[in-house]
Amino acid sequence: MDTFLPLRDDLRGRSAYGAPQLDVPVRLNTNENPYGPSPALAADLAAAVALAASELNRYPDRDATALRADLAAYLGHNLTPNQIWAANGSNEILQQLLMAFGGAGRTAMGFEPSYSMHRLISLATQTDWVEGYRENDFTLDPERVVAEVSAAQPDVVFLTSPNNPTGTALDLSVIEAVYEAATGIVVVDEAYAEFARDGVPSALTLLPGRPRLVVTRTMSKAFSMAGLRVGYLAADPELVDCLLLVRLPYHLSELTQAAARVALKHAPELLNTVGTLRAERDRLVSEITALGCRVVPSDANFVLFGGLGDQTVTWQGLLDRGVLIRDVGLTGWLRVTAGTPEENDAFLAALADVLREQLLRESQT
Amino acid sequence: MDTFLPLRDDLRGRSAYGAPQLDVPVRLNTNENPYGPSPALAADLAAAVALAASELNRYPDRDATALRADLAAYLGHNLTPNQIWAANGSNEILQQLLMAFGGAGRTAMGFEPSYSMHRLISLATQTDWVEGYRENDFTLDPERVVAEVSAAQPDVVFLTSPNNPTGTALDLSVIEAVYEAATGIVVVDEAYAEFARDGVPSALTLLPGRPRLVVTRTMSKAFSMAGLRVGYLAADPELVDCLLLVRLPYHLSELTQAAARVALKHAPELLNTVGTLRAERDRLVSEITALGCRVVPSDANFVLFGGLGDQTVTWQGLLDRGVLIRDVGLTGWLRVTAGTPEENDAFLAALADVLREQLLRESQT
Repeated sequence: MDTFLPLRDDLRGRSAYGAPQLDVPVRLNTNENPYGPSPALAADLAAAVALAASELNRYPDRDATALRADLAAYLGHNLTPNQIWAANGSNEILQQLLMAFGGAGRTAMGFEPSYSMHRLISLATQTDWVEGYRENDFTLDPERVVAEVSAAQPDVVFLTSPNNPTGTALDLSVIEAVYEAATGIVVVDEAYAEFARDGVPSALTLLPGRPRLVVTRTMSKAFSMAGLRVGYLAADPELVDCLLLVRLPYHLSELTQAAARVALKHAPELLNTVGTLRAERDRLVSEITALGCRVVPSDANFVLFGGLGDQTVTWQGLLDRGVLIRDVGLTGWLRVTAGTPEENDAFLAALADVLREQLLRESQT
Repeated sequence: MDTFLPLRDDLRGRSAYGAPQLDVPVRLNTNENPYGPSPALAADLAAAVALAASELNRYPDRDATALRADLAAYLGHNLTPNQIWAANGSNEILQQLLMAFGGAGRTAMGFEPSYSMHRLISLATQTDWVEGYRENDFTLDPERVVAEVSAAQPDVVFLTSPNNPTGTALDLSVIEAVYEAATGIVVVDEAYAEFARDGVPSALTLLPGRPRLVVTRTMSKAFSMAGLRVGYLAADPELVDCLLLVRLPYHLSELTQAAARVALKHAPELLNTVGTLRAERDRLVSEITALGCRVVPSDANFVLFGGLGDQTVTWQGLLDRGVLIRDVGLTGWLRVTAGTPEENDAFLAALADVLREQLLRESQT
């Protein structure tokens, strides 16, 4: 935007982030879990809020002690509550990490296409952004990545596993190698970890002995709680202490803390949907492939598919058929979230229709 | 703190902000409203959450459209929803303002003693802090303030009315003069506005024709909702648009938005407590004065009193008697929040006791 107001110079000309929030029958654009909380969970949430309400005149626990204990128990790996930190979505986690370890005169590095907020929050916190190289098949080449990290010596390195928007998971050996090469903080964004295929390990196993390593997670995806805004991280207790210097006091509301704890109690029920969504993700991979598209192997709850030419035409064609997916700005590619079987059927039918129409148009010109 | 981790250099040696969160019978230390929500409000909150819960798998409205409309209606002054912005406490509002209009190489100015987060969030966002002069009676001298603002030309000026921790309200003429002298953003923090004595005007009346003026408010105090974390601002729509460049996407949870709207529906009931607290505040002023202390005139829900010598001794003496108030770091002064009549009675009795004991000790030495 342009403005007569004394806006920070480096923000001029930027536009606000955000996927379109459109009201259409099938929304498969923001990697939400399509399964809402059960009536039993909704009732438990309401009861917890009714209980918390009587004390809402008081500030919440500034350090979210009980919630962090619950999150540690959920993650396992012998993690202790002082290794966990929680905030309003993993976006706020990322912002706090960048405020503590990045900032003006410092650099952050990432390998795009990836979660664009890594770059955008780096820029918002005045951290210089260094673009690493991701291979054409969207994997990371360990030697190349290590060479880039060694050369740039970024203060913060972002790795994403499984990566958004490609679905690509990382071998732990890559993370280990990057950590060895780096002198700064290494953040492994595991927002979609619960959706990984069997045998794909978590970077949580690498935390012991690596005090500059951070693993971020979220309750937005596997836990079906995008509306609750709870992201969290696991790291060395001293790294968590550093974040207390930049966190806003009382950043996490009493309702958020109470509701997140209820959701964690319902973890088995909520994570039940993960199995269904993994199967649907695999179905999307094979059926989109069968439609003649290129498809990136996915360990997440979404699928990136390509070979579309001008992807904006395909995107609009799907929207015209009531299906909203995500144009992530990669020429020829689109990303679709795994929804319910019915939503995925609707998407696949619409995609087949759009591709048929495009083929017809091309054959006529 | 000191750390082996690659923390931002200017954060080294700092310690995390926060009043002690102690479990004592009488808590009058963080300017909370002592009156919790009514059972009827708690039930409405639970019902709203139960309703919102079924959609918690979806991201919330990124722009909090309905909540901003409700806040505009509450504030009045012909404000429109696009002049309102809301976030997780006024702390996040302040952070967004400083990220958009401050940052490295820019300056913010405030007049301490004041709300310490103005300075602390300035520093956290790498905005240089310029200290203006507050008179010995804690008022601002218009000529002096205008001269300081003209000389320093800060990018962001913080005025606080009523001021925390002193309770001092500002004449609108001071705000007008500062606005004229400034080229940057002028933020009037009105967190305690609802507690002002009759005839004390709000800076909201000054908004028309002043696009660099911002008035911040909170639901934590008058609305008894410290645990909900909702702060907001009123300003020019273009200034609000600037904040969209730095806000975290989906920063405000669905539960927060829904609960805040319920609280606003109960505004008459919630604001009923304000009258009681104003009367109790006035009683504290006169009774603390009667105990021989200096007392600053207050338009807020707290009272700053002094003439204590070493205030840490008085603070500890009160705590030993089960009364927690706030040492704001001003030699000889302490701040007490207006609680319920019973809490204030307990505080006044404890204070009388502590002062008597101190007098006795002094006469024995």
